[in-house]
Amino acid sequence: MPHRIRRIDAEAACAEQGSDALAEVKLHGRLAYEGDMLRVHRDIVRCPDGHIAYREFIRHPGAVMVIPMVDEDHVLLERQFRYPLARTFVEFPAGKIEPGEAPLECAQRELLEETGYRARDWIYAGGFNNAIGYSDERIEVFVARSLTLDATRRDPGEVLELFSVRWRQLDQWVRDGRITDCKTIIGIYWIERLLGAG
Amino acid sequence: MPHRIRRIDAEAACAEQGSDALAEVKLHGRLAYEGDMLRVHRDIVRCPDGHIAYREFIRHPGAVMVIPMVDEDHVLLERQFRYPLARTFVEFPAGKIEPGEAPLECAQRELLEETGYRARDWIYAGGFNNAIGYSDERIEVFVARSLTLDATRRDPGEVLELFSVRWRQLDQWVRDGRITDCKTIIGIYWIERLLGAG
Repeated sequence: MPHRIRRIDAEAACAEQGSDALAEVKLHGRLAYEGDMLRVHRDIVRCPDGHIAYREFIRHPGAVMVIPMVDEDHVLLERQFRYPLARTFVEFPAGKIEPGEAPLECAQRELLEETGYRARDWIYAGGFNNAIGYSDERIEVFVARSLTLDATRRDPGEVLELFSVRWRQLDQWVRDGRITDCKTIIGIYWIERLLGAG
Repeated sequence: MPHRIRRIDAEAACAEQGSDALAEVKLHGRLAYEGDMLRVHRDIVRCPDGHIAYREFIRHPGAVMVIPMVDEDHVLLERQFRYPLARTFVEFPAGKIEPGEAPLECAQRELLEETGYRARDWIYAGGFNNAIGYSDERIEVFVARSLTLDATRRDPGEVLELFSVRWRQLDQWVRDGRITDCKTIIGIYWIERLLGAG
């Protein structure tokens, strides 16, 4: 679709994050689909140039991702089957935030459930949005260090595979397409910043 | 949810990308919601441990993102209102692939529509999946160089703002939360690799 383009400078781009020259106004909204996992909203909006449009999007409870550091050089990764793409993915542990749960609590729960580890040190890296065109999901990224295995946690349930790898090797896995999961690539971005100076 | 964890080594993680020890088998599927923009599928699957589960996910036509290099130091970015999150985002130009369109064609069309520029040099960086839990979307990343403004393209339509910025400044914008869009962060990851040596 053609776009109306307004040229601004970089300072304005930062300063005006909260401005509404671009804002779309909700005129009407409804829950168009409610499944077990996905809820789709369908709103009618007025765009800044006056035209009326539909917006369909998913409301998501938010999620966390954990980068578990085995030591300064190694991270834990999972291999998990992802049905929408019908193949396994190499990825960092992650999961949805439950009602009333703080992001850090969720990170601690997911790390334990998916890897069997607890961590003494937690660093919050930052958050990102993974599908701004059609979802309100935000994923908070934590680095977990000083891991200890909790041998009592071995409940059966969903299946995944766990392995340890040198994190400096992961850039090559992104370059050759072995890692394509966005959160995992962003995890590598953050590790480089937090640990890459050495 | 608790998980059944199998420990493997990093070599196995790479070698077995196509294996099916983790695969879920589709037993039944239906289109559960068909909107103007989103289509939700709801399948019943058998998991590798035998249990039966639902999988809900969006089928997406795929998308491209373009990193437009004004020169070796500057990139073009947009500011666009994203309704699901009710705020503007700083992001690289991107858009959905149309039926029958090759990813590069889509990238050229989106660059022209969203910025008014054509590019002589195109580099394919790689692809990534942005919501593997509930969407089959894949975004292909291109770097566009040797830009020329096509002054004839000024159709009105959706509204966005365009600006140029030093790409080495963008890491700070990720760190301080001014950039949270996953594709744009991954774009910075790729620029650093393709141009960052200098």
